[in-house]
Formats: sequence, structure tokens, C-alpha cells
Amino acid sequence: MSQPLEELREQLDGINHELLKLLNKRAEIVRSIGEIKDKQGVPKFDPVRERAMLEELTRQNPGPFKDAEVKHIFKEIFKASLNLQEEDHKQQLLV
Amino acid sequence: MSQPLEELREQLDGINHELLKLLNKRAEIVRSIGEIKDKQGVPKFDPVRERAMLEELTRQNPGPFKDAEVKHIFKEIFKASLNLQEEDHKQQLLV
Repeated sequence: MSQPLEELREQLDGINHELLKLLNKRAEIVRSIGEIKDKQGVPKFDPVRERAMLEELTRQNPGPFKDAEVKHIFKEIFKASLNLQEEDHKQQLLV
Repeated sequence: MSQPLEELREQLDGINHELLKLLNKRAEIVRSIGEIKDKQGVPKFDPVRERAMLEELTRQNPGPFKDAEVKHIFKEIFKASLNLQEEDHKQQLLV
């Protein structure tokens, strides 16, 4: 009854692609948030907001990923997003 | 013309939730692949397949995330998925 390996791999490639699109859509939003924060002169890194997002995500987590794995992956996403905001900020200073 | 911070944050929460669902859907597929590999007695970690997935993802990457960031995030997803397969395998041995 199990699906052949090739079919499962095709499904995986499809999900990878969807994840890639969503991650970049997320990065665009984070950039816009960074621009607003720049204008307001407030720091980009907001540990309270990050913790709230992680708590919400583990609360919603249906598995099979454990909460620790979900937190770990999202922390990496947050870190990459913060890097992007900081690069934008440097670009702005150079203009 | 810029959207207020609160609205952007709501969009971000929505995307976080979509990412969470997709990551877990991906984990389910990886588990099924792990079961097939267990039956075939082949190793779970397949560096050639991982490299091919990363190349495909950077090829498709529209940005703003750079290829290096995309690779980094997906490597963490692969690692977490491999952990899941290994836990399943241990569970099986205990049955």
C-alpha cells in the first residue's frame, strides 16, 4: 500500500518549492517591518516578539516535528531575516 | 503608503502558521521515505539527493533571501528530518 519512493520524492520537491516561496514572502514582510523600524529608530531585534512567535508556533504544532525542532528551525529563519534587515540598513547608510 | 506595523505582523503570523503546517507535512513524507528505506536496508542520509535538492532550491530562489541563507535554512530542515527518521528507526527496534 505504501507509495513508491519516487512519488514521495516528487511530493517532497513540491513542498520544498512551496516552503521556498513562503520563506521569501516572509522575508519581504520582514524587510518592510525593518523599514518602518528604521524610520522609528527602534531596534530590529525584538526578543519579546520572537519568544511570543515561538510560543504561538509550539502551541499550534501538530507534529510529527517536536516543539524543540520547530523552535530550532524558526530561530534559524528569524536569524536569516535579521541579517537581511541589517544588510538593508547598511545599504541605506551607503546611499 | 506603508502598511502599519500591526498589519505586517499579522501577515507574518499567518505565514509562520503556513510554514509550520508545510514543515510538518514535509516531515510526514520524510517519515514515509524512511520506512521504505528501512525495509530496503539502505541508509537514510543521502548526501547526493540533499545536494540535488539544495541546487534545485537555489536555482528556483527568487530572493530576497540569498542562496546561502536558503541553503542554511534547508540544511537545518534536512537535519531535523533525519533526526525524526532515526527516532522512528529506534522505536521500531524497541517494538
